[in-house]
Amino acid sequence: MGPGALATQTDIKYALELGTLIAAQDWILLSGGRKEGVMDAVNKGAKSAGGLTVGIIPTSNNEDTSEAVDISIITDMGSARNNINVLSSDLIIACGMGAGTASEIALALKAKKHVILITDNQPSKDLFAGIDPKHIKIVDSPKEAIETCKIILKNQ
Amino acid sequence: MGPGALATQTDIKYALELGTLIAAQDWILLSGGRKEGVMDAVNKGAKSAGGLTVGIIPTSNNEDTSEAVDISIITDMGSARNNINVLSSDLIIACGMGAGTASEIALALKAKKHVILITDNQPSKDLFAGIDPKHIKIVDSPKEAIETCKIILKNQ
Amino acid sequence: MGPGALATQTDIKYALELGTLIAAQDWILLSGGRKEGVMDAVNKGAKSAGGLTVGIIPTSNNEDTSEAVDISIITDMGSARNNINVLSSDLIIACGMGAGTASEIALALKAKKHVILITDNQPSKDLFAGIDPKHIKIVDSPKEAIETCKIILKNQ
Amino acid sequence: MGPGALATQTDIKYALELGTLIAAQDWILLSGGRKEGVMDAVNKGAKSAGGLTVGIIPTSNNEDTSEAVDISIITDMGSARNNINVLSSDLIIACGMGAGTASEIALALKAKKHVILITDNQPSKDLFAGIDPKHIKIVDSPKEAIETCKIILKNQ
Repeated sequence: MGPGALATQTDIKYALELGTLIAAQDWILLSGGRKEGVMDAVNKGAKSAGGLTVGIIPTSNNEDTSEAVDISIITDMGSARNNINVLSSDLIIACGMGAGTASEIALALKAKKHVILITDNQPSKDLFAGIDPKHIKIVDSPKEAIETCKIILKNQ
Repeated sequence: MGPGALATQTDIKYALELGTLIAAQDWILLSGGRKEGVMDAVNKGAKSAGGLTVGIIPTSNNEDTSEAVDISIITDMGSARNNINVLSSDLIIACGMGAGTASEIALALKAKKHVILITDNQPSKDLFAGIDPKHIKIVDSPKEAIETCKIILKNQ
Repeated sequence: MGPGALATQTDIKYALELGTLIAAQDWILLSGGRKEGVMDAVNKGAKSAGGLTVGIIPTSNNEDTSEAVDISIITDMGSARNNINVLSSDLIIACGMGAGTASEIALALKAKKHVILITDNQPSKDLFAGIDPKHIKIVDSPKEAIETCKIILKNQ
Repeated sequence: MGPGALATQTDIKYALELGTLIAAQDWILLSGGRKEGVMDAVNKGAKSAGGLTVGIIPTSNNEDTSEAVDISIITDMGSARNNINVLSSDLIIACGMGAGTASEIALALKAKKHVILITDNQPSKDLFAGIDPKHIKIVDSPKEAIETCKIILKNQ
């Protein structure tokens, strides 16, 4: 999960790397699916490494869907689809920060899902670790994010 | 908007007062509608002052609906209903903090809605004011919240 | 519940009368809320008789909302909001027939809600009475619809 | 799309065959995903032929998900997820009839999607062909359903 139009250069770079690493684990990538920012980059990364990609699309058609999404789920329910994103994921990696991403992290914690957070936004780390320290892991790189996922999955 | 089971005593006190003040303005109160915490208290406050109350219910029936809700909208869509809460509101007052409340504030900012925030949770103030300073107002009391609403409505 | 743009003259006439009769019973009218066809007419009928009206809106704002809707619930979830329409209603009156209306009747029967049907579309009567004869009542006029509602509510 | 617990023996037989034929075309199967009736059978058919299967799940976890679903999208939105089922499909094949299936056909026609109908329920054929003859094709066997899909896809 991560920002669309407001993603930073670092967010995009990390998202590309995350997509590649997720595909290398043979995990299925699920994202918000739009052709912008972190969503587009993580799907492109996963496809470059031969992964399978699923996009949960907020609109009623595929006009804004990333070309790197294999399976697009058309919800036509705007930001309410953010709850489907997190419920359908075994683990959530949040890369970058913004209103949509913050809503997904909060919805994930509400559903008792584990969230791995890569961002330099300090208040978001403080807020979400304060709300549910057990389900938030803060990491500094895509590689550390994947290693953290592996540990969480092993313990489940 | 505000926490259910995890609401603090201050959250409850403020919610009761907010409900009373909202009804005194002849505004319709819209909330998440459950019979817990801030949701229950704000509805009770509004009814005590003769207001009209609408609850957007996450479950498939009224078993967990506050008795002080006049009109219950049954969504059966869990936390995805949080997006309906904010889209249907002219203004959002967030009282207290938790995973559900944080998701509602984030969804409200995503939809470019004004949010008035009453909480002593400093990271949440820093995060949301950082994401969209134009749409976040931080206040210290229910009375200040209502005065802030009136100013925003006047300028719209 | 009933068609928008494809409503017939009879559908519109009946919807106006239904709105008036629903308000006369002091019932709250809940509809799909758009400013077309049966939705617009039933809300206008209810307001003409001093009723309270709630609209469950499929889009993200009130641009297409009937002016006779008092409380608009903004879902931004397109036709998925049809399920909220039926779950939030104590009883459903379906006036006229079309794709949207048929989906609402079917969703109502799925949720074990009572549906009163006014239409001259014979296959729809045969289909829905065949699926769940216990929850379908077929009537010939708005007055008969309201009398049927009263009997069902008395027995609940 | 098709009934769960109320599916007939013929519905189940046809669903198994449809799943096998869909996989043989290298199409992705999307269904309501529950472990009952047509949903379970069509997924099992597809997996027996090496297909890829996606389930749009109405509940908040996988307790009722068919074991033959590869990718489960957890919506937690009950029957409102029926609209996602049809919007996400290039074509809809409805096998059997019931309240849920009727709602999906109606929502599909509302969204101008093509629906291929296999059922001996005559009123449903009359109703839906009457609502939108251009988007309804009535067939008598799984093989004819697949041939009809191929013709529609070729003309799109």
